[in-house]
Amino acid sequence: MAKRSKTTANPANKARPSAAADDDTAITALKLPPAPLSPDMAAYFAKCEEKLGFVPNVLKAYAFDMTKLSAFVAMYNDLMLAPSGLSKLEREMIAVAVSARNRCYYCLVAHGAAVRQLSGDPPLGELMVMNYRAARLSKRHRAMLDFAAKLTAEPWLIEEEDRERLRRAGFSDRDIWDIAAVAGFFNMTNRVASATDMRPNSVYHGQAR
Amino acid sequence: MAKRSKTTANPANKARPSAAADDDTAITALKLPPAPLSPDMAAYFAKCEEKLGFVPNVLKAYAFDMTKLSAFVAMYNDLMLAPSGLSKLEREMIAVAVSARNRCYYCLVAHGAAVRQLSGDPPLGELMVMNYRAARLSKRHRAMLDFAAKLTAEPWLIEEEDRERLRRAGFSDRDIWDIAAVAGFFNMTNRVASATDMRPNSVYHGQAR
Amino acid sequence: MAKRSKTTANPANKARPSAAADDDTAITALKLPPAPLSPDMAAYFAKCEEKLGFVPNVLKAYAFDMTKLSAFVAMYNDLMLAPSGLSKLEREMIAVAVSARNRCYYCLVAHGAAVRQLSGDPPLGELMVMNYRAARLSKRHRAMLDFAAKLTAEPWLIEEEDRERLRRAGFSDRDIWDIAAVAGFFNMTNRVASATDMRPNSVYHGQAR
Amino acid sequence: MAKRSKTTANPANKARPSAAADDDTAITALKLPPAPLSPDMAAYFAKCEEKLGFVPNVLKAYAFDMTKLSAFVAMYNDLMLAPSGLSKLEREMIAVAVSARNRCYYCLVAHGAAVRQLSGDPPLGELMVMNYRAARLSKRHRAMLDFAAKLTAEPWLIEEEDRERLRRAGFSDRDIWDIAAVAGFFNMTNRVASATDMRPNSVYHGQAR
Amino acid sequence: MAKRSKTTANPANKARPSAAADDDTAITALKLPPAPLSPDMAAYFAKCEEKLGFVPNVLKAYAFDMTKLSAFVAMYNDLMLAPSGLSKLEREMIAVAVSARNRCYYCLVAHGAAVRQLSGDPPLGELMVMNYRAARLSKRHRAMLDFAAKLTAEPWLIEEEDRERLRRAGFSDRDIWDIAAVAGFFNMTNRVASATDMRPNSVYHGQAR
Amino acid sequence: MAKRSKTTANPANKARPSAAADDDTAITALKLPPAPLSPDMAAYFAKCEEKLGFVPNVLKAYAFDMTKLSAFVAMYNDLMLAPSGLSKLEREMIAVAVSARNRCYYCLVAHGAAVRQLSGDPPLGELMVMNYRAARLSKRHRAMLDFAAKLTAEPWLIEEEDRERLRRAGFSDRDIWDIAAVAGFFNMTNRVASATDMRPNSVYHGQAR
Repeated sequence: MAKRSKTTANPANKARPSAAADDDTAITALKLPPAPLSPDMAAYFAKCEEKLGFVPNVLKAYAFDMTKLSAFVAMYNDLMLAPSGLSKLEREMIAVAVSARNRCYYCLVAHGAAVRQLSGDPPLGELMVMNYRAARLSKRHRAMLDFAAKLTAEPWLIEEEDRERLRRAGFSDRDIWDIAAVAGFFNMTNRVASATDMRPNSVYHGQAR
Repeated sequence: MAKRSKTTANPANKARPSAAADDDTAITALKLPPAPLSPDMAAYFAKCEEKLGFVPNVLKAYAFDMTKLSAFVAMYNDLMLAPSGLSKLEREMIAVAVSARNRCYYCLVAHGAAVRQLSGDPPLGELMVMNYRAARLSKRHRAMLDFAAKLTAEPWLIEEEDRERLRRAGFSDRDIWDIAAVAGFFNMTNRVASATDMRPNSVYHGQAR
Repeated sequence: MAKRSKTTANPANKARPSAAADDDTAITALKLPPAPLSPDMAAYFAKCEEKLGFVPNVLKAYAFDMTKLSAFVAMYNDLMLAPSGLSKLEREMIAVAVSARNRCYYCLVAHGAAVRQLSGDPPLGELMVMNYRAARLSKRHRAMLDFAAKLTAEPWLIEEEDRERLRRAGFSDRDIWDIAAVAGFFNMTNRVASATDMRPNSVYHGQAR
Repeated sequence: MAKRSKTTANPANKARPSAAADDDTAITALKLPPAPLSPDMAAYFAKCEEKLGFVPNVLKAYAFDMTKLSAFVAMYNDLMLAPSGLSKLEREMIAVAVSARNRCYYCLVAHGAAVRQLSGDPPLGELMVMNYRAARLSKRHRAMLDFAAKLTAEPWLIEEEDRERLRRAGFSDRDIWDIAAVAGFFNMTNRVASATDMRPNSVYHGQAR
Repeated sequence: MAKRSKTTANPANKARPSAAADDDTAITALKLPPAPLSPDMAAYFAKCEEKLGFVPNVLKAYAFDMTKLSAFVAMYNDLMLAPSGLSKLEREMIAVAVSARNRCYYCLVAHGAAVRQLSGDPPLGELMVMNYRAARLSKRHRAMLDFAAKLTAEPWLIEEEDRERLRRAGFSDRDIWDIAAVAGFFNMTNRVASATDMRPNSVYHGQAR
Repeated sequence: MAKRSKTTANPANKARPSAAADDDTAITALKLPPAPLSPDMAAYFAKCEEKLGFVPNVLKAYAFDMTKLSAFVAMYNDLMLAPSGLSKLEREMIAVAVSARNRCYYCLVAHGAAVRQLSGDPPLGELMVMNYRAARLSKRHRAMLDFAAKLTAEPWLIEEEDRERLRRAGFSDRDIWDIAAVAGFFNMTNRVASATDMRPNSVYHGQAR
């Protein structure tokens, strides 16, 4: 079950860090040596360092293959940062609510921090991780997350009535696409992260608490 | 529940087609007018027409936005067609087994046809749709699909032991990434298709039976 | 897990048939030598050969014991072929929707073919196998399949309100019995087929595509 | 939800019977007037009265149609009473363990009583209803019920390994068929009973306590 | 799986008692020698003997530690016996419906007997064990048990609407607390009993049939 | 669904606090006016203020009834603070892993903070909330949490083999009781908190990050 485990916390309450990954080489459980960064990707990594102070581990995990890294970055940046009827915070809320259903450690840590930062409301980040239904949400946000949660758990049950509920909450057909696409994307990345035991940068834990 | 339903099959056994989508304008339930194709995407669509005889509806569904269409095509082509330790048939088998768990009509029709074609074994396509566990599979294929199925249903339970099982079946760490990435990708597209009620090209139904 | 597996599809995409059962002696995983057919059953098998061109494998599977075979045939023929407020197509649609929930390879192949034939609408057969909720169904058919699906998945939750929904869709109390009895029957046969690894006649795969 | 409910138990702890069905005309929630009994079925009902002191309500429920009643009786008597490698008690244990998973009130009452009677061990009947895993069972019985429970809950997961486990516990291939057939049969009757709100004869409650 | 099993019921239908625990020393699967009873607890056990004729095994199970036993008794007696807007029968109905979801043998036997006794309606006890939805319940009782069942199965889905449904059925906010507290308590004891394989006093089986 | 919701986060990313509860009177959704504190409980509240700097909201929630409050405090303090073969950190780890399965906002916030504090390892608190299987745990801790998780999700499946696994990991029978009792207790409090929409003191969010 837990073959990679190292004794950490112990009965005597003396524990060494349970989940550090920054200084470790092991960002994932797979041995995939990094490829030389393409000029585009080198520039992108530099921009991450400059704006965030670090390169998110998911990018380093994909960096064994420049085609895969570029495709991931292109899709991610379009979905999460391009103009949309959904605010960036809303897209991050979907990211976390989906990742909570899939219990994805990497995505909950990284995107939970994003919700805390973008909202200026640390408990909101916790609520998205723990149970979005316990949050005091606007009707718009509740409808959006209910759709994303159902789409995550039982996609085969989504029907016109579910889309109508989003429209009644003020979402356009383009917004519905964006909700579906963001929810879909994290259903992908949650699985890539869980399949490879991807570890988040430890800097996220303390952000915007 | 079934707001978009039109009476089709009836008790007297006279039915009009239940699911046609080609001559229909409605490839999805969302009204998203197509954008002008970029030169790259126009060339890609032309190549589809030439090689397949048609443009897959998923591409038309994404064609309301060239950035999204390009990102989807880039990721899809890398995952499903680029060199890999997994054969193209194996990647399609994963696609269908994942889509079966998520009961995604679009992906089961389109990729079920691909399994039938690539394998030259029509029942194998049916087995992937219905229950891959009922197929007579090699140990390699069984391990690959068991991993993809668990990753789809309960990604939070994947651990080192699951990766070890793949290694024992002969997969390299790079192959494990590819299995995870393909399974993850269809967990995304299944949800985009279900969220938008995407309809497959009807030509798939009769292929390679 | 897959002890009976024989290497079939392989990475090089050269595959021998994955699921043939006709020329095989092994219709199920159980070694149960056939008993001599009783005159009644011999006549029935002859009628199958004449009308269908073959004897369905489920009948051969039961043929180790004439009492069991006769009881099965009597119940099957009454449920699926006798006069009823449900058309034969409707009964086959229930059969496939139930078998889809139970992921029964034998019943999905055999009765999926029946839906394609009786409806003259091949995609309808695929939809029943993949996700009946994605089909464009009449209210009558949607109510009928929703009842059958709930009865299959969570029979303990069926209450008067569920029966009322069928009555509002135009079904009589006798029709409700027939829906329940057909859904119940396939919940039985799905399990006998899965328990014994029953293999369908390969002729079904190509029928009415 | 509970449209047929009549106020019974009340806060003051004065309750009128919650579930009587004998003197009631309403054995099920469906209005299906009984057909005249055929000579065979009249004789069978008379035999029930003579041997049991009553006609089980399930038979009265089927008595609106002689073909259906006869087919049910033929299959039931073969499965539960004909010679088999399984004792009658074992077949009843399977019946109750399956009905417990499906939470079928009718079958749990009627066949729970049968387990108590045939075993001479009232708690065994309770254990089959409540949780067969809590019973002190022989390896043979545990293997038999584990197979029946898995076949009931997730029939698509049954594989050769499951059959091998039964063989290691001493069951022949014919016994495996019988376990599957009995488990399958109660998966049918549980659903017919739940779909129609079938009520057991009240005499069962006090039997063999 | 069943390491503690002793051969009991056998194919020949000769069985020794399957679940006795009174004369046994083994009330649970854990070896926890009883501590000397404190004066309070000695008096309480004596009162049990006097009023019930026996000391419930759950008390003996906790008697290895007087602090734990006292805390359990204090909470139990307040919840189940102190004045409340819920009758004692109603609290026992909740206990059994919750224990049915958790399939807890100990609690179903002991509290099923309590429902039979307090209601004077033996089938009501059976219904709570088997499927409370099949009982003819007042709206009050149905709402109460639906809340307890949802709280047991999916506590994260409880929202204001669920509380409102209880208020509409006539429950005060204090009553809602009591429903939640009783349902919560049995979710605790079901797990302590299942974790330790706790066996009920055999006297319960025959009570109030 | 979300009747108590107040608009908080909004599309423009300006949000007022989503979940504050300290200055609010509304610790739960139930209107239960506090009773006068008994001398014991007044002393206990004073001790909380002194040691923690605040009174945990769960205690205020129970303070409408001194008997219930005292019983809760007695059981809580014995389970979480009394001498045991389990360290306090271990008991808190169980608390959080159980609460994660039940998605209980109150308990995850309060006891997640406790894990961070007692371990001196903030990511460990996050891991218990998000997915304990992703933590690098000792065999002892993994076995302990696997037992607690199974007992929470499917208590009816716990058998002697599960207890044996704990014994092999070094736990005594008394330790097994304590694991079961702590896991059971949080299965109770999770449900009381979810049923009443209990809100945690906001001070927890920033502790030990």
